[in-house]
Amino acid sequence: MRPFADRLIEKVTQKRNPCVVGLDPRIDCMPSFIVREARSGQKDSQQAIRECIVSYHERIIRIIADLVPAVKLQIAFYEQYGIPGLMAFVDTIKEAKRNGLLVIVDAKRNDISSTAQAYANAFLGVTSVFEEENSIWDVDCITISPYLGRDSLEPFIRTCYKYGKGIFVLVKTSNPGSTDLQDLKVTFGQRSEPLYASVATLVNHYAMGSIEKSGYSSIGAVVGATYPNEAKALRILMPHSIFLVPGYGAQGGKATDIVYCFNKDGLGAVVNSSRGITYDFQSANLNESEFDALICDRTSKMIADITSAIRGRRV
Amino acid sequence: MRPFADRLIEKVTQKRNPCVVGLDPRIDCMPSFIVREARSGQKDSQQAIRECIVSYHERIIRIIADLVPAVKLQIAFYEQYGIPGLMAFVDTIKEAKRNGLLVIVDAKRNDISSTAQAYANAFLGVTSVFEEENSIWDVDCITISPYLGRDSLEPFIRTCYKYGKGIFVLVKTSNPGSTDLQDLKVTFGQRSEPLYASVATLVNHYAMGSIEKSGYSSIGAVVGATYPNEAKALRILMPHSIFLVPGYGAQGGKATDIVYCFNKDGLGAVVNSSRGITYDFQSANLNESEFDALICDRTSKMIADITSAIRGRRV
Repeated sequence: MRPFADRLIEKVTQKRNPCVVGLDPRIDCMPSFIVREARSGQKDSQQAIRECIVSYHERIIRIIADLVPAVKLQIAFYEQYGIPGLMAFVDTIKEAKRNGLLVIVDAKRNDISSTAQAYANAFLGVTSVFEEENSIWDVDCITISPYLGRDSLEPFIRTCYKYGKGIFVLVKTSNPGSTDLQDLKVTFGQRSEPLYASVATLVNHYAMGSIEKSGYSSIGAVVGATYPNEAKALRILMPHSIFLVPGYGAQGGKATDIVYCFNKDGLGAVVNSSRGITYDFQSANLNESEFDALICDRTSKMIADITSAIRGRRV
Repeated sequence: MRPFADRLIEKVTQKRNPCVVGLDPRIDCMPSFIVREARSGQKDSQQAIRECIVSYHERIIRIIADLVPAVKLQIAFYEQYGIPGLMAFVDTIKEAKRNGLLVIVDAKRNDISSTAQAYANAFLGVTSVFEEENSIWDVDCITISPYLGRDSLEPFIRTCYKYGKGIFVLVKTSNPGSTDLQDLKVTFGQRSEPLYASVATLVNHYAMGSIEKSGYSSIGAVVGATYPNEAKALRILMPHSIFLVPGYGAQGGKATDIVYCFNKDGLGAVVNSSRGITYDFQSANLNESEFDALICDRTSKMIADITSAIRGRRV
């Protein structure tokens, strides 16, 4: 497969926006028409859980597929429903791909050596079993935690090269607690910098070794929308990495803050919104057409907000 | 349920050793009698994967259940087999519990706020769906990554209190790359310390707020067997936390190094061995009784090695 970076930049260019919609199942917050339909008939609750999640995501994907380049699945919300949740995870990935969307999984996985390789196999590569190679979750890219160091990143990076996939390494996250460790001042002789800058330097080291035709690397970074000053510094430290930017909307990040995550070419970042698009309804009793219109409207507003902020900055 | 720390210390005292056996499925490295049996009959490969893993672990659990206090499941190795792998994960957890073993899951999960809560629900608490509360993986404790800061740890800690469960926060891991970030020198005014010490201080803050009858807290730490000097310092920084110690055996950690992870009472740590007990056979063709004897022998040797090192130090 072509490198993830090139595929993502191409999709962003085609759709003319860098917006990503989060598909994070919270059954208790879904509109009642979805839940009612999934629970009807003779199904057991395991089947109903899977059907609820899948039908909800199919409906959203149908609305957003022509609008945005990618979806982001937060795997924690699928794991919380156990096996039927993870079956719905597989179904959602397939449905998104069938509709031409790139699939980012927010998994924040990592581990050491052969264990990191097992995660890389599961999400990005193949698992060998009984003399066969099976694709398991088979997504386009995942998020990775850096705390375990280089030898934990390298199995993912090798797997990305081999299968045209990507990773986003956590650098500066969008939550208030990101200051607790990520902002600690680390010193090297006379020089000092925040920990997130050291992580950025590590990410950039790998990104510089793999710049694709688009000018970007498949080794990207997570940079929260809620820290614009840090984003400015990080954009300079990692010029060829694509940023995955969480924290827009529900978490308080504004489009005018997010522009610093982009390069001067107007590319180099994708911005996610989850709850702000797919949950937070005033009532669970909205009907099907109201729901469809709301998802479309929220997605369009996000696109307009982000793209006009990027254009405004480039002028 | 009683607090995890008390339950773990009690099991360690009952079994008179702090050894943990890793159950990390690698089908391609299992003895051929297990794989042959699982693949026989009319099963499809999904069923065969699940059966392979479950029958292998049932066999091991039968041998070790009277010897050790707990097992550790590295979830990456289950995830790499997709849905049947995770079904086998559920089956293995149930089988370990039925045999009176505590279940530690090495998941190195984390995320922010409501997402961290979703992981906490999945592993340690309950998930609400359709007006019911379901236990999902329902294990005794999991490992957690600290990079996202306090607000990512707190949902897990609250869930531990509520359900009598535990966490082990990554502090100093056993791999060579743990030096890359964990050893960076962070400064606070005139004072400086390695990053892992700052993480230890954070873990200790939560542990001090929840010391149980055993004298230990359910908020523990991962401290690798391969860094004895760091372990000495960390034992002082986190006096009431139980250490989960990976890296013994296959990764090069020696019993004489590991003693520094224990307190003077001979308690305060559990030591894991995975490959060194359950894989790394000279040939895949050993028969059933040879296999059983080997697992028993390796486990007994580990127990003797660790307990004599602890006794040696206490004298």
